[in-house]
Amino acid sequence: MKILVLGADGYLGWPTALHLSARGHTVGVVDNFARRSYDHELGASSLVPIATLKKRVDTWREVSGFELATYIGDLCDPEFTRRIVTDFEPEAIVHFAEQRAAPYSMIDRRHAVYTQVNNVVGTLNLLYAIAEVNPDIHLVKLGTMGEYGTPNIDIEEGFIEIEHRGRKDVLPFPKQPGSFYHLSKVHDSHNIMFATKIWQLRSTDLNQGIVYGQETPETVLHPDLATRLDYDGVFGTVLNRFIVQAVIGHPLTVYGKGGQTRGMLDVRDTLACVELAIMNPAQRGEYRVFNQFTESFSVAGLAELVAKTYPGDVTIENVADPRVEAEEHYYRAAHTKLLDLGLNPHLLSETLLESLYGVVERHHANVDPEAIRPQVQWRSIASPALAGSELAAGRQ
Amino acid sequence: MKILVLGADGYLGWPTALHLSARGHTVGVVDNFARRSYDHELGASSLVPIATLKKRVDTWREVSGFELATYIGDLCDPEFTRRIVTDFEPEAIVHFAEQRAAPYSMIDRRHAVYTQVNNVVGTLNLLYAIAEVNPDIHLVKLGTMGEYGTPNIDIEEGFIEIEHRGRKDVLPFPKQPGSFYHLSKVHDSHNIMFATKIWQLRSTDLNQGIVYGQETPETVLHPDLATRLDYDGVFGTVLNRFIVQAVIGHPLTVYGKGGQTRGMLDVRDTLACVELAIMNPAQRGEYRVFNQFTESFSVAGLAELVAKTYPGDVTIENVADPRVEAEEHYYRAAHTKLLDLGLNPHLLSETLLESLYGVVERHHANVDPEAIRPQVQWRSIASPALAGSELAAGRQ
Repeated sequence: MKILVLGADGYLGWPTALHLSARGHTVGVVDNFARRSYDHELGASSLVPIATLKKRVDTWREVSGFELATYIGDLCDPEFTRRIVTDFEPEAIVHFAEQRAAPYSMIDRRHAVYTQVNNVVGTLNLLYAIAEVNPDIHLVKLGTMGEYGTPNIDIEEGFIEIEHRGRKDVLPFPKQPGSFYHLSKVHDSHNIMFATKIWQLRSTDLNQGIVYGQETPETVLHPDLATRLDYDGVFGTVLNRFIVQAVIGHPLTVYGKGGQTRGMLDVRDTLACVELAIMNPAQRGEYRVFNQFTESFSVAGLAELVAKTYPGDVTIENVADPRVEAEEHYYRAAHTKLLDLGLNPHLLSETLLESLYGVVERHHANVDPEAIRPQVQWRSIASPALAGSELAAGRQ
Repeated sequence: MKILVLGADGYLGWPTALHLSARGHTVGVVDNFARRSYDHELGASSLVPIATLKKRVDTWREVSGFELATYIGDLCDPEFTRRIVTDFEPEAIVHFAEQRAAPYSMIDRRHAVYTQVNNVVGTLNLLYAIAEVNPDIHLVKLGTMGEYGTPNIDIEEGFIEIEHRGRKDVLPFPKQPGSFYHLSKVHDSHNIMFATKIWQLRSTDLNQGIVYGQETPETVLHPDLATRLDYDGVFGTVLNRFIVQAVIGHPLTVYGKGGQTRGMLDVRDTLACVELAIMNPAQRGEYRVFNQFTESFSVAGLAELVAKTYPGDVTIENVADPRVEAEEHYYRAAHTKLLDLGLNPHLLSETLLESLYGVVERHHANVDPEAIRPQVQWRSIASPALAGSELAAGRQ
């Protein structure tokens, strides 16, 4: 199948492009290097060195024999967006190309506005391009489990049947996102649902949990094929960050009580889920939502797991929660639709953790301990340490 | 009280500013003349001539003795937004300053993107300005009943108690907005709810129905105080448009079957509701939603009412619905919160209709019959007759 991967230079976009290519699909990769520019802005970098996109693509050609058509540009540029859809003629488009860190969106006003405009306008331009060029294209869009927040009822996959005063309807599941980033994904979801209806598009919204892991069968084939691994307080996600902290002897920083429970998944399952969605496309006019995670963990539980399995001394430190969120809450979320399509989950195991310890140990000299602590406070209007950057101002 | 009215040069912003001023409040008015620029773009104009904002303010000073502090600028300019909040020191801010026509947002990609960026970024900038300058300021934001769409259950005021698999929670009412404009209001609602929570702001979201009428006790005091009356296919709302059609002998254009049912209210009730919200402010940290309408009507029912009451021949024409919407549906929406605060509604009466017929008859020479028919089709990617304009491109 001809598949265009948007945001293909990022943490998940890159291994997804490789996976789809290895499985025999004809893959095009699109990126504007926004993710690398955030590194420049924050003075941070991936723990595992990553090659340039050009080198990645060249190496993949040498290793696999497969070509990745490459497009450099910004979805917020409507002519670019229309051109890639026209030129590549994709049957499916996988859309990772959004600013994806909650703390980044909460740095200050400029970063909040940048995140929402970048994500919402890029997706709007994409919807228009699909509708105009070929409404048969299946849009596979990355959303987040964070769109739902933590309601005191079971979370369903996108929609919920509500019985109210003697009447019934199936309605979009109420959203309670917890950052301007998560809000941008909720805005996207509403826009996609509407566009799918009026133009009879095909769309799948993958409400993904927090991803852990760094190696996939393709990325391990050559060091230049590695994907990034972030551990800093802005882009580092919880389990990856804990592992880095364990390796360098830093206390595991649990935010607040650590009762925050989230759906999570192995990076390899991200690739499998995206491919399952593509191989089982939505119908014309259908907007469907899959909750894309395999297991739920509390933050404190993850910290304990790392402390228990890491072969060395580990301490756990409860730091003041920089976010405004429930630190203890009910959490139960449905995630059967991808299993029904045939997902075989990689559940979090000691083997995976050991492999991650190994990855981090090989690169531990790259760790900047200063970058680990949370620097962005939800309750503050601006985080002085990070808000000074003019890069975001330039973008916005 | 010191009240800043944003979008104070518009259909509702202007009479709201006058009403609050007449009631003894100290009022500041803010506008960027976006609404007047849409007229230039579409080659349309208000049926009732309107004076410049400067003349309006001068005339109000002469008529009432009250001063309106005037600020010209764009909420999408964060420095301007922060400056007006700092300079005027409002206790409450009434926010009408958004692109408010569903058909305008559906003209093409540029108009959709413009509408969402303009509305969402303006509101984000405002939330940051309030949080930074004085989080005690009460934000009274105009939303729309169109955020809810037409679910098959009763619509509540912003939130709904859901019982699901043996557990209960009170959650945001699910949204099913029907245009990129309505979607922008849903995005705003989510952003405001979140900002109110993290920064402990005070906010009231007024989900307003469709407003009819043109005269208020203040605007009738002098011709230069008149507010606009729109009847065109883009900005004209349903009852105002039917009245113009009746007066000029044009068939009343009912979209589809006409079973579309909507909450509606008299322009004078808009002013009363806004003032009630201001005089009964939200608590710190409270985001509340009032459904701001007084009666529900079907489109066909309104056409029949006009046909019955207009002293002349009236025909009704069912034209193909340009929108993607249910043409017949269940509709029952709560609207008790403003009544509980003391609203005395002006229900739609023959007297009001007769007064509106009079307004339109005095100005019927201004009607451009070409402007009345729907020119924007929801199912089309672009509406050729209107998409050619470069004004919106310049803005976006």
